[in-house]
Amino acid sequence: MRLKRIGEAIEEPPIRVVLYGVGAMGGSIAKALLKREGIKIVGAIDIAEDKVGRDLGEVLGLESHMGITVSDDPDGVLSRSKADVAIHATSSFLKDVYPQISTMIKHGVNVVSTCEELTYPYITDLKLADKLDSLAREYGVTVLGTGINPGFLMDTLVIVLTSVCQEVESIRVERAIDASKRRVPFQKKIGAGLKVEEFKAKMKTGLITGHVGLKQSVAMIAEALGLRLDEIRVIEAEPVRAEGYVKTEAVEVKPGDVAGLRQRAYGIIDGEKVITLDFKAYLGADEYDAITIRGVPDVNERITPCIHGDLGTVAMIINSIPKVLKASPGLKTMLDLTLPSASLGDMRLHIRG
Amino acid sequence: MRLKRIGEAIEEPPIRVVLYGVGAMGGSIAKALLKREGIKIVGAIDIAEDKVGRDLGEVLGLESHMGITVSDDPDGVLSRSKADVAIHATSSFLKDVYPQISTMIKHGVNVVSTCEELTYPYITDLKLADKLDSLAREYGVTVLGTGINPGFLMDTLVIVLTSVCQEVESIRVERAIDASKRRVPFQKKIGAGLKVEEFKAKMKTGLITGHVGLKQSVAMIAEALGLRLDEIRVIEAEPVRAEGYVKTEAVEVKPGDVAGLRQRAYGIIDGEKVITLDFKAYLGADEYDAITIRGVPDVNERITPCIHGDLGTVAMIINSIPKVLKASPGLKTMLDLTLPSASLGDMRLHIRG
Repeated sequence: MRLKRIGEAIEEPPIRVVLYGVGAMGGSIAKALLKREGIKIVGAIDIAEDKVGRDLGEVLGLESHMGITVSDDPDGVLSRSKADVAIHATSSFLKDVYPQISTMIKHGVNVVSTCEELTYPYITDLKLADKLDSLAREYGVTVLGTGINPGFLMDTLVIVLTSVCQEVESIRVERAIDASKRRVPFQKKIGAGLKVEEFKAKMKTGLITGHVGLKQSVAMIAEALGLRLDEIRVIEAEPVRAEGYVKTEAVEVKPGDVAGLRQRAYGIIDGEKVITLDFKAYLGADEYDAITIRGVPDVNERITPCIHGDLGTVAMIINSIPKVLKASPGLKTMLDLTLPSASLGDMRLHIRG
Repeated sequence: MRLKRIGEAIEEPPIRVVLYGVGAMGGSIAKALLKREGIKIVGAIDIAEDKVGRDLGEVLGLESHMGITVSDDPDGVLSRSKADVAIHATSSFLKDVYPQISTMIKHGVNVVSTCEELTYPYITDLKLADKLDSLAREYGVTVLGTGINPGFLMDTLVIVLTSVCQEVESIRVERAIDASKRRVPFQKKIGAGLKVEEFKAKMKTGLITGHVGLKQSVAMIAEALGLRLDEIRVIEAEPVRAEGYVKTEAVEVKPGDVAGLRQRAYGIIDGEKVITLDFKAYLGADEYDAITIRGVPDVNERITPCIHGDLGTVAMIINSIPKVLKASPGLKTMLDLTLPSASLGDMRLHIRG
């Protein structure tokens, strides 16, 4: 790359983007993409009954129509739209997204996905990951799962910070989110307002899943550094009790009831917790992202307040587009791409060689 | 990359490393390399009279000889040693290192260099950079300049943190080093103990150069993000006056005399300082590395205390070896390589595909 290229005229056609999933996250990404030069949205796929058949502009809550109809027919949209890349935002789980991603690959479309389990798919399901990798190579496209967490704060950034270390003894990563500043669905998702017994019952029945991605983050850190873990241990989400009375527009929490959750995961070698991830999301939490590395030298890093999850995920997805378009074919992780960065201005500048 | 590969047996021969420059920094890197598995030092080049002809073990202050004689004949060492990669640590300036790096390239040896101006060579001297790039491609080798600063704290890490941003309005990066905790030559280099007039005179005659690399760091950030700067302005180093009396093993500073220096650089668009780098190194400074990004979202990041420069540079150089060996040929910057990380354990594991 050269500084001089930025000054050159732009003659390339815009990058053609298909949206696969226009729910809360997919919709936010779409709206941010509309502000960007060098990007053209050329199709939208979703299965939600209240979206299919409607104009995308309307679905996104814009004032004008976009001339793009949300369709529940992926093959149709993908064959017509001749997209360079699909922004995929449907599910957290690799099993669910596997057929969707296979379809996009077979249409020769590169993929940037918010799927949490896809950020480090080899630890999620090695067979499915290998299949996607082979298929992507066969069709000459690149597939990436990313986001703020997993995808950046508790893995990629940790890995980058270790590059100043000659030796690493242990790594501790904390993320603490004040849920009262987040969307109502997020507050419900973490169990805010429940009695502790209700929280535990909902955990058992899978109505509260906790944060998805800690396992992937531990595995990605270990792989990058060359740590041969004996075990990745993900502890079930635990309720965090409210110390005082808390009320938001959505929930009311009495002292002793559930304000949110805490979830931990460990990378273990010889019984020692070499990697510790500690995720906390509850009403009233002090917000920060902290990384502590014991090694040569030590690294004590802290971001205050913590990075906003939704804003950050939108950024990570969009900023990854040029990195994915420039990468060699295959199923990639953040470890395989060139240095992550904001991709400002006309997006076409960022895919020049 | 796959997690499973870490468990596999290692049958590859060790990575052969030549040292080009065994001064303070080159020597520290060499000693750290000796602790690593999968690495073999196969030659050493230096022109210092007190080193040439002596055994490398002796030059490094080790208890035993290594059977490697420090030589002032680069061609001889490079043809005999059949090295995979050279660790190059001789000068901060591209002009000085250009012939040395050309020689290594012509011997088909990959290069990881501490040369500050090589971290973003295209802003230093476009012609020399283009020549090195062409030569490296011709001979099929990869060349990288890196280190802790420039190379990481005031550029690479800043760039990585912007990847959570949808928009970036301004970036401020600070590095503050307490020089009393550093090597004596470092304390002298920053003018500690001088009268202010002496400091200014030494600046004029070039006996104090200030920190080398701020221009490169500004340019690298701008390039990565796609910011088209009107100007990169590097302010001459200014003396920082001691508030009280300070004494180290090397210098004695009276109140009002020079405790060290401060140096700033700016990336400017339409008269606005979009990028600000602020480097401070003086006796008694509060140590930290801080990155503040105003954008969507804001990022307030801080490492406390600051990363130790010498320890960090040794790490950056060694950790870059596998990234360089896996990269395509050419003159690279940190922007072009895959995600930086610590490379722990047997180094051969990190160059597997």
